Amino acid sequence: MTDSWQECMNHCVDVTKQAGKIVREALEKDIAVMEKSSPTDLVTETDQRVEKLIISAIREKYPTHCFIGEESVAAGAPSVLSDGPTWIIDPIDGTTNFVHRFPFVSVSIGFTVNKEVEFGIVYSCMEDKMYTARRGKGAFCNGLPIKVSGQEDITKSLVLTEMGLKKDPEHFKTVMDNIQKILNVPVHGVRCPGSAAVNMCLVACGAADAYYHQGIYCWDMAGGAALVTEAGGVIVDITGGPFDLMSRRLIVASSPRVAQRIAQELTVFPCGRDDAGLCHLVN
Amino acid sequence: MTDSWQECMNHCVDVTKQAGKIVREALEKDIAVMEKSSPTDLVTETDQRVEKLIISAIREKYPTHCFIGEESVAAGAPSVLSDGPTWIIDPIDGTTNFVHRFPFVSVSIGFTVNKEVEFGIVYSCMEDKMYTARRGKGAFCNGLPIKVSGQEDITKSLVLTEMGLKKDPEHFKTVMDNIQKILNVPVHGVRCPGSAAVNMCLVACGAADAYYHQGIYCWDMAGGAALVTEAGGVIVDITGGPFDLMSRRLIVASSPRVAQRIAQELTVFPCGRDDAGLCHLVN
Repeated sequence: MTDSWQECMNHCVDVTKQAGKIVREALEKDIAVMEKSSPTDLVTETDQRVEKLIISAIREKYPTHCFIGEESVAAGAPSVLSDGPTWIIDPIDGTTNFVHRFPFVSVSIGFTVNKEVEFGIVYSCMEDKMYTARRGKGAFCNGLPIKVSGQEDITKSLVLTEMGLKKDPEHFKTVMDNIQKILNVPVHGVRCPGSAAVNMCLVACGAADAYYHQGIYCWDMAGGAALVTEAGGVIVDITGGPFDLMSRRLIVASSPRVAQRIAQELTVFPCGRDDAGLCHLVN
Repeated sequence: MTDSWQECMNHCVDVTKQAGKIVREALEKDIAVMEKSSPTDLVTETDQRVEKLIISAIREKYPTHCFIGEESVAAGAPSVLSDGPTWIIDPIDGTTNFVHRFPFVSVSIGFTVNKEVEFGIVYSCMEDKMYTARRGKGAFCNGLPIKVSGQEDITKSLVLTEMGLKKDPEHFKTVMDNIQKILNVPVHGVRCPGSAAVNMCLVACGAADAYYHQGIYCWDMAGGAALVTEAGGVIVDITGGPFDLMSRRLIVASSPRVAQRIAQELTVFPCGRDDAGLCHLVN
């Protein structure tokens, strides 16, 4: 099946380019924003339009494949990972950034077979960077190979995370306490760029040494996961155990040592699972 | 004296381009990093080399002008603002980003006369964006006019700040508590990009609605200050009162309303003054 997945990946790059073009055009126009549930949870017409475009362009060519897409799930579609070929889609990763035209906005697509990520594509729209990675074939940015920093020392690391308001005040407090613990290790710095997929690409190309997050979704992680592992980095659960794509949490890092050192600092809070059918109730 | 300052500004753009070229070249090479005092306080050979280049290129043409430069002050030069024409220079704003090749790294130069910023130039090296602003003449990015978002509603704002480790644990706690208060207003989000000058440019071009910071230096603020005000934004003290370039603190925003709303939330901590001769003892 190797060639067949390569064909899927080539098609994915084409579709992502088209999607990215729409996102870029929308960024140049005024945006009519609808609020989903809170000021930090925005969705735009473009978000839905881009997901529809991606799914229809892929379904046309691969009618038997499965899909998990942010907007489809928001509209009630199931978010369960099967063994079949599955496209996991975030049409606009960094929606708040998109609304403000803050520079990190991406289209992210991961493709899984037997629940393993086979390839990942992340297009950082405003930077015009196309990140691509296929299992066992390396990671690339605009066609050039990329690799993680290889940093093993947490005290020399630049760490990425996010600190959006959580509905549960206890979770919010834990997020902020965790950031303080990481800063206190100490590390070189903590940055919050606002797009999970771009964060993973920044680790993949060595511009940051680690990224951790609790409470994100499989479509935020699937594309970037391939990038990090193929660039020589590691991806683990927030506890330091094996990564689970549906667990809504992760640590990615330049080395196992940095990943485990971060896991050691973090307090975990329950954030549900993507496949529990509850994902929109617990963030 | 109008034409004369315009000539200074033109020269400044030329010098900033040269400086930016060196920074860009260094980002492509391996960097030999020296630690100044802590892992979050890095300085590189490039930092010093770029400041020397800038000062000598300006001094050659304007031998009577004054200079305040980050690296010169670190080496013992005074940091006092006089009424004479003064160039306030940050050779690499975002040194930690620079070391990691995280995308926001800038060369920032502000020019003051009678203690007022006459023009500011910020070159975002990895984005290849040259921001320029002259008092009363507007703000530009790569020659195109820019303006702030004009946002008046804090709850729809994207807010920038930084959260580096402070030596004083009480200050560090206040920094983190302040971020929590801002997130709780609520706002759309908080981002920490890691370069004060770029943060100000992001507000100036409407990609963020506000930026606040306590504990930075005049060279972090001087260039960006011109950008924000000329793009139609406001710059005030952290208390909401008049901005003071040597006070080591500021709020910039898309509107007075957003600036004052942020001032209302923030707890102030003493961070000394640039011109007190103590600036390296209190951060």
